Amino acid sequence: MGDPAGIGPEITAAAWRALRTCGPSFTVLADQALMRAQGVPVRVVARPDAAGFAAALPVVDVKLAAAVQAGRPDAANAGSVIASIERAVRCTAAGEACAVVTNPISKAVLQAAGFPHPGHTEFLAELMGVTGQEVMMLAAPGLRVVPVTIHVALRHALDMLRTERIIAVARVTHAALRRDFGIAAPRLAVAGLNPHAGEEGRMGDEEQTMIAPAIAALRTEGIAVSGPWPPDTMFTETARQRYDAAICQYHDQALIPLKTLDMWGGVNVTLGLPIVRTSPDHGTAFDIAGKRMANPASLIAALRMADMIARNRNG
Amino acid sequence: MGDPAGIGPEITAAAWRALRTCGPSFTVLADQALMRAQGVPVRVVARPDAAGFAAALPVVDVKLAAAVQAGRPDAANAGSVIASIERAVRCTAAGEACAVVTNPISKAVLQAAGFPHPGHTEFLAELMGVTGQEVMMLAAPGLRVVPVTIHVALRHALDMLRTERIIAVARVTHAALRRDFGIAAPRLAVAGLNPHAGEEGRMGDEEQTMIAPAIAALRTEGIAVSGPWPPDTMFTETARQRYDAAICQYHDQALIPLKTLDMWGGVNVTLGLPIVRTSPDHGTAFDIAGKRMANPASLIAALRMADMIARNRNG
Repeated sequence: MGDPAGIGPEITAAAWRALRTCGPSFTVLADQALMRAQGVPVRVVARPDAAGFAAALPVVDVKLAAAVQAGRPDAANAGSVIASIERAVRCTAAGEACAVVTNPISKAVLQAAGFPHPGHTEFLAELMGVTGQEVMMLAAPGLRVVPVTIHVALRHALDMLRTERIIAVARVTHAALRRDFGIAAPRLAVAGLNPHAGEEGRMGDEEQTMIAPAIAALRTEGIAVSGPWPPDTMFTETARQRYDAAICQYHDQALIPLKTLDMWGGVNVTLGLPIVRTSPDHGTAFDIAGKRMANPASLIAALRMADMIARNRNG
Repeated sequence: MGDPAGIGPEITAAAWRALRTCGPSFTVLADQALMRAQGVPVRVVARPDAAGFAAALPVVDVKLAAAVQAGRPDAANAGSVIASIERAVRCTAAGEACAVVTNPISKAVLQAAGFPHPGHTEFLAELMGVTGQEVMMLAAPGLRVVPVTIHVALRHALDMLRTERIIAVARVTHAALRRDFGIAAPRLAVAGLNPHAGEEGRMGDEEQTMIAPAIAALRTEGIAVSGPWPPDTMFTETARQRYDAAICQYHDQALIPLKTLDMWGGVNVTLGLPIVRTSPDHGTAFDIAGKRMANPASLIAALRMADMIARNRNG
């Protein structure tokens, strides 16, 4: 469902129109009246069900507490938003679906209603009992990025940087590139932290004290990894040919190049979970919700990528 | 000249071939034997001279102390590299040329020879007696970025961030967009520092304590300025339509989007100097020097932009 007052409902309807004949099929966990209001035929189902996907959008009815006004989020509906996520995870863990795709939520709204997690990713890890092992990848055509730290102040991200953390994130990424993306011998590129990757210590030494040791350790495990690369030149078209994923030291080092290259084709993939989970790489967009301006491309890409990963995992 | 062991000599020769008939004309301040070795006809001149540019490359002879091996920088030539810069600035300040364009230098080589400046930009500001007023802009087709801090460790950049500094850099940028770029009513966009521009303080508060106050102050001066913007979404094609220059909080926030979009068309422009100065937006590239692989596009763009700025300034 995602936040029902955001663009989630309308991009979900648009995704059904785009995918109804060619697939992948999906079931929505949301209030059925909300989905009918998007102008698509709805079939209410008890659990995820691919049958008749071309004729109607399957919906597991998750009732909302308050009427929805597009663009006006309401904390009264936070419980339903959270219930939709929990139910999607349970269905998928039980094998009723092959992946979870989440629509954007508003952290501010959910936190106001007592939701203690920074976002979907951390909540899913807790639901699956793997807190701390979750890793966020953003994937667009031609570029995959994995930030070592995510939703923290930049100053805090610097304080959190550790050799062990870089190693752990790179290991999870390497395993996922093989299992989920079908890349037999993945190549990782690790970004430096400072301008020009520190220029041999002249502008910061984290490359020497923390990043290079992580790279050395990963190599002894047989992982093909290069770096630390100067951050500003590692995302050019030529440089991107040299790796399958870039390990980045902070949120914007990863997300600036990804979104600058491809605002709407990016997909958020959670690595390190027992289940497959993807999401569109944008927010609730309350400012344009209900105005039929929202672009469904990222949600469609997220649905396709979830399908691809599940097929790779299941052989 | 730039570092004679880098790609400077070969891209200069390539730029002459590209521009000899259509201009702009330029004079090289470098060892004349070094330039002849690039396979172009050379005419030695006493001062910048546009006459006969189509037939031969004008060179003011700046002798080197040691023979040049491409790819092997030699601190023995640091004095000549510095002399070339000083002479170019003197010529231009005296009105013998309308702009200085600098080829890449190696800060490590020059600093080993006692050069105390972090780079060209700061050295030029000192030569012109305007230390601290220099501002670096990177300009590519469709994107101009101005970092508030430049060549310092990321941690140090956070410590240096001040409302007054953001205001000063934005003022210089605004004036330069009018005078140098011919934009009558420039629009500035100011980046946040933290992920999602801090999400109202949930991930860092520099947006509220330092950046928003700078924006408010600039508006009272009549400058059209927006922000603080989430860094990861402000460089998309749609977002870039909304401003003429992005004021960025640190080096890579500015340079990652610029180089990711356009590795070879970017130009480094120093704002806040009495003279016009541009340079290519890449380094000495010792690893490929002398191998005829270097791309002259950024130097050519720098020469054209210097010409454009000088024409705008001089009406």
